[in-house]
Amino acid sequence: MTLVGTSARRADGEDKVRGAARYGMDYLEHGTLVAKVLRSTVPAARITGLDCSKAASMPGVRAVATAADAPGLSGLMIVKDQSLFATDVIRYVGEPLAAVAADTAEQAEAALAAIDVSLEPLEPVLDLEQSLAEGSRLIHPDWESYETAMPGTRGGNLAWESRVERGDVDAAFDRAHLVVEDEFRTQRQHQSPIEPHVAVARYEQGRYVVHTPTQFPFNVRGRIAELLGIRISDVRVIVPPIGGGFGGKLDVMVEPFACILTRKTGRPVRILNSRSEELATCGPRENAIVRLRTAVAADGTLLAQDGEVIADNGANSSGETVLVANVAPLVLGGTYRIPNARYASKVVYTNTPPTAAFRGVNGPYCVYAQEQHLDRIARELGMDRRTLRMNNLIRAGESMVNGQQLDDAFLTQAMDKVDEIRPWQDAHTERKPFRGVAVVPLTWITNPLPAAASIKLEEDGTATVTCAGAEIGTGAVTTGVLQIVAEQLGLRLEDVRVSPTDTDTGGYDGGAQGSRTTYGMGNAALDAATKVRDQVLDVAATMLEAGSDDLEIADGTVRVTGVPDQHVAVASVVATAMFDSGPIGASGKFATPPIPFDSGCMAGAAVTSFAAPLYQAHMAEVEVDPETGRVTVLRYVVAQDVGRAINPQMIEGQIQGGVLQGIGYALFENLRLGDNGEVIDDDLESYRLPTAADAPPIDAAILENPCSYGPLGAKGAAEPPIIPVAAVIGCAVSDAIGTTMKELPLTPFSVLQAMTEDQD
Amino acid sequence: MTLVGTSARRADGEDKVRGAARYGMDYLEHGTLVAKVLRSTVPAARITGLDCSKAASMPGVRAVATAADAPGLSGLMIVKDQSLFATDVIRYVGEPLAAVAADTAEQAEAALAAIDVSLEPLEPVLDLEQSLAEGSRLIHPDWESYETAMPGTRGGNLAWESRVERGDVDAAFDRAHLVVEDEFRTQRQHQSPIEPHVAVARYEQGRYVVHTPTQFPFNVRGRIAELLGIRISDVRVIVPPIGGGFGGKLDVMVEPFACILTRKTGRPVRILNSRSEELATCGPRENAIVRLRTAVAADGTLLAQDGEVIADNGANSSGETVLVANVAPLVLGGTYRIPNARYASKVVYTNTPPTAAFRGVNGPYCVYAQEQHLDRIARELGMDRRTLRMNNLIRAGESMVNGQQLDDAFLTQAMDKVDEIRPWQDAHTERKPFRGVAVVPLTWITNPLPAAASIKLEEDGTATVTCAGAEIGTGAVTTGVLQIVAEQLGLRLEDVRVSPTDTDTGGYDGGAQGSRTTYGMGNAALDAATKVRDQVLDVAATMLEAGSDDLEIADGTVRVTGVPDQHVAVASVVATAMFDSGPIGASGKFATPPIPFDSGCMAGAAVTSFAAPLYQAHMAEVEVDPETGRVTVLRYVVAQDVGRAINPQMIEGQIQGGVLQGIGYALFENLRLGDNGEVIDDDLESYRLPTAADAPPIDAAILENPCSYGPLGAKGAAEPPIIPVAAVIGCAVSDAIGTTMKELPLTPFSVLQAMTEDQD
Repeated sequence: MTLVGTSARRADGEDKVRGAARYGMDYLEHGTLVAKVLRSTVPAARITGLDCSKAASMPGVRAVATAADAPGLSGLMIVKDQSLFATDVIRYVGEPLAAVAADTAEQAEAALAAIDVSLEPLEPVLDLEQSLAEGSRLIHPDWESYETAMPGTRGGNLAWESRVERGDVDAAFDRAHLVVEDEFRTQRQHQSPIEPHVAVARYEQGRYVVHTPTQFPFNVRGRIAELLGIRISDVRVIVPPIGGGFGGKLDVMVEPFACILTRKTGRPVRILNSRSEELATCGPRENAIVRLRTAVAADGTLLAQDGEVIADNGANSSGETVLVANVAPLVLGGTYRIPNARYASKVVYTNTPPTAAFRGVNGPYCVYAQEQHLDRIARELGMDRRTLRMNNLIRAGESMVNGQQLDDAFLTQAMDKVDEIRPWQDAHTERKPFRGVAVVPLTWITNPLPAAASIKLEEDGTATVTCAGAEIGTGAVTTGVLQIVAEQLGLRLEDVRVSPTDTDTGGYDGGAQGSRTTYGMGNAALDAATKVRDQVLDVAATMLEAGSDDLEIADGTVRVTGVPDQHVAVASVVATAMFDSGPIGASGKFATPPIPFDSGCMAGAAVTSFAAPLYQAHMAEVEVDPETGRVTVLRYVVAQDVGRAINPQMIEGQIQGGVLQGIGYALFENLRLGDNGEVIDDDLESYRLPTAADAPPIDAAILENPCSYGPLGAKGAAEPPIIPVAAVIGCAVSDAIGTTMKELPLTPFSVLQAMTEDQD
Repeated sequence: MTLVGTSARRADGEDKVRGAARYGMDYLEHGTLVAKVLRSTVPAARITGLDCSKAASMPGVRAVATAADAPGLSGLMIVKDQSLFATDVIRYVGEPLAAVAADTAEQAEAALAAIDVSLEPLEPVLDLEQSLAEGSRLIHPDWESYETAMPGTRGGNLAWESRVERGDVDAAFDRAHLVVEDEFRTQRQHQSPIEPHVAVARYEQGRYVVHTPTQFPFNVRGRIAELLGIRISDVRVIVPPIGGGFGGKLDVMVEPFACILTRKTGRPVRILNSRSEELATCGPRENAIVRLRTAVAADGTLLAQDGEVIADNGANSSGETVLVANVAPLVLGGTYRIPNARYASKVVYTNTPPTAAFRGVNGPYCVYAQEQHLDRIARELGMDRRTLRMNNLIRAGESMVNGQQLDDAFLTQAMDKVDEIRPWQDAHTERKPFRGVAVVPLTWITNPLPAAASIKLEEDGTATVTCAGAEIGTGAVTTGVLQIVAEQLGLRLEDVRVSPTDTDTGGYDGGAQGSRTTYGMGNAALDAATKVRDQVLDVAATMLEAGSDDLEIADGTVRVTGVPDQHVAVASVVATAMFDSGPIGASGKFATPPIPFDSGCMAGAAVTSFAAPLYQAHMAEVEVDPETGRVTVLRYVVAQDVGRAINPQMIEGQIQGGVLQGIGYALFENLRLGDNGEVIDDDLESYRLPTAADAPPIDAAILENPCSYGPLGAKGAAEPPIIPVAAVIGCAVSDAIGTTMKELPLTPFSVLQAMTEDQD
């Protein structure tokens, strides 16, 4: 069979391209009410009154929900500090105060306007350093009372801290030839998928049935239950086709409002965020400060690094920022051999909208900082930048900062592949004034969460996969997973389908995040497919009077190997099995095997290692317009190890998209906050997203370096292409203009400013 | 654990009782169009023209469908002689000619009226004997071209014939002390559930998604595919709560019209039968003729029986009448020891609406005929009627007419149990003028079709069963199956739920028919639950540092037996397993084991044996009003072997309901046909259904006689209570008035007539 490894077309593609797909936003139930949320316009205040009586009696208004309807405290897996509605205290502009269900959107809006809110203003805490400063007003005075999922350093406005320490850092600094120190500041970036958050909920038989285009249905299910104070299994999440996510649809957002209001009204309730609500209240990538101090030997060998990452949690831990705090140390200490290292990753409360997961989580700014920092070291040593990197790269068998041994490290191979496509020496020496070049290697994680899938064969010999894996748009489910299943079962891809994503029917799945779908769900589906194949062969062996070892399946037919006229259709096997042993079907599951690491070197780490680690290198050539400061990316090269390329075209699509999203982050995307910590850029004119016009020519080379526990060797592929983009573009810009760039994005203004200042 | 065997409450009960359940009739999608069907008003004609052009351009009309849209020939499993629309020839009043989708019902009706149909009338064939007569006009001149699923005797207007023959019948007749011969005629009976047939279909991603309250989703899926000429797996059937079925919702009915019209319009389409369409076109129990001739020894020993059953198929084989033809011989030869027997079961075409499955299929009239016939034999021999029966009953280890050995035969025990509740001698001797008593034993089948189910554990330690078993209203899924699962998993019943019935997510299931849900689905679910339990115990054993054999699960907690403080919640086991071996879940399946029988004695038999045979006895005492002929059932006793009573209250409910439905059949239900073979009784005033006012006091004794391959010993329970009712009431009436009653129903008119004629 040759299905795996081919760029098979996805079953959901045609409907999506033709505009026929019914996305979450298109989903409606008969007799649905409209819900709207009243949001705070101030960043910090005590609530002294909330009178909904007038609103409740307005025309068309069916129900009003307030804090009393959502008694639970929740948070994304680690710290439970979020209530659905602000209760006594308001903590950010945009925080929900009440919600209304009405017959029409206009009636709901009118009711919101009639809710009477009385407040006593508090002084907002907006700045990361101000928040951590001694004596700063506590944003969560009751922080000690919050439940946490694991022990960690926290307190006051420090929501969470994780730490990694290896070797003797101070001693290494003492014997350093060179010590370099830098501080970088990066901005908020918004996921902005085409489809805003939307949900339709109905209440039946004591349970909430929620249609929502989420990336992580089981998380949304659990979070709704926690916020509403109900049983997890009293919530059913069904996922229609998703209009994009990029991490922004991993967590609960509008769903609980719809749940409360359907319970109160007995009618289906739909809630749809406006674009302004999307930008202003739906957790973006966090702004951060990265401080790095590095000890280097005269030959450029990295001796030690001391790093601090301060990330903005916003007003609570409803997003992933706390959960992934420890990814920062791992990414800082996962690509280069740094024998002595000390990293602190701090997540800090501010009176700003909560931050959350965005493709690559904290990778892009950590890598940006590290690579700018390394370029400065190279400049100070007068060393070739690629050579500095090659000399310090982790080789197969060496360890990351957490002690995790990277037996399959493929960083030099990725760097060499890039060099093959665009030789560094040529690019470096040929470059003209105001042109720059850079190359960046990177080790990254595949999200290790578990998965389950079941497969059954239909009477026509086709197969149906039932799972709760969300098809976020990458094709990971509709091609990757289905290609694996089809190949294992000897069926054509069009004869394998996947049932709708539904927490009632699919087993637990860790969501469409961290490139884990092909890896995790692929493994679970492969497990189920292998069992189904065994059942088919058992029955066919009897039918064909052959040993099952002598059988092969292809194109829906079981054949006796080498005996062309001895065969039986899979559909006949299904029919025979039906009355023999029963309908053919099986359940499969997957959990990432334990990954050895040194637990003694870490504290407060929810993410302790890099599962199915993958390796890549990016190269960029840029031009800076000396008159305007505008940066143009002239050429881009990616070499990425995906373990095994199940569908090369889909992977290349992810590389192209990731690079473009990284260009946005590097050059212009910036979700700015105003004087009240409110989002200024709350429409898509002001918040500029990259378009096809921003895309440089991109060479994407896919490398195969199989993972021993990946399905057919596959690792993650979709998330990482965004991560090194800002770093490699930033380094190329620095190369072009000869100075370290300490802040993102690299807007024309900031580039011009850098060209006129001596920052180093 | 004591959950199995208790009358646990069903999860769906409260919503149903409170009117909150959303039945199929309540299901609507946003933007749904209304479909209506144009039906023939003549029983037999050649179609010379069908012009829909005017209708298609009328206001609000979105699409018109005709025969060209449904090219397939189909039929219920055996003979494929049905097209969705009449093509060249009309074969019954009510046959579909075209269908329309419009914005409103009024617009659709108006469009139907505008369709121009040109016909050349043909002489209708309405009568069974006329149909079989030499030279009769062929209703299906192309009968030879139809595909059939198995070989069988057929031809001309004989749609199907099955035959069973054992021993030397003619020789036995030659040496008989007495030969008795009878002919019985029985009527059509309509299932008439509260909810009519209804379906909502939409077309997406090249597939048809059909919401329909069907008893047998996989059959409906396959039949839609066959009628439309599409792939089985391109149809997805989802089953909302069902408002009753009784066999009437086993087969495809309105669904294909909705499918064609949603495909044409791109909009969801709903079709809802009127009550008149229900009665006039949705296959009722068939009318039949039963002829019996029996050879008896002087002591009442049955020596031989020669029987012929002629059943009305109606215009095609879209219903179950052909499929179950061979049940007639098995039921005639399955209760009494008849060493020499010859049965022919003939299913005959007529120009009348097709007949179909109704609870008990052909059982009620075959048993009616046999028992009336036996009573006449007893009268002729001057023998006590109960003694005649007891002497001839099949005992454990003896065989049915098909050679199937009934090792667990429990007929005498059922008769004895009835006798214990209401001693025959007392009832018989105490009876006053115009009062009668009768007792009837019966062997019946549990439908043997296969089943599949999967079970997963949720993060809160509860369990979800995914299956395509339809909860027809008996509680077989929501109590029976779930009680088995809950007990096996050590969970409370309220902690086990079942996902909606959906052919995409549930494995193949043989439908809610023939009492098979608790038996078949129960077995499949038990298989899955056993695997899930093993997974829980494996993980818990590691957590508790104990052997899994030393563990027990109860109330959601795993305990080390005998060590009270050594325990762990199932929810914790689920969480631990998640990252250890993966989410806990498993698939289960069931196929009825092979049942030995003598295949050499049968021809044309789709049903060859009685799986999980069950045994019962019914007794009735009646009073006949000599002035009016009105029959009142004074007392009713049932003793029924269910193998193992999973939920006694639900079983008793089925016994009560079955008896009442049997009373309707016995005394007044009669779906009469007019001179054009059209249904006369097409509303519920004219077609009288039994009500609570018709219910006598019913004593129901549940007997437990475990089936070795039933789940925890359970056999079927729900179907059989209807079957002997007409027989036992008929025999009691005969006892009261001293004459054989040759026709059903026993209306006052027919009883009065019998009292004035000497029929015997």
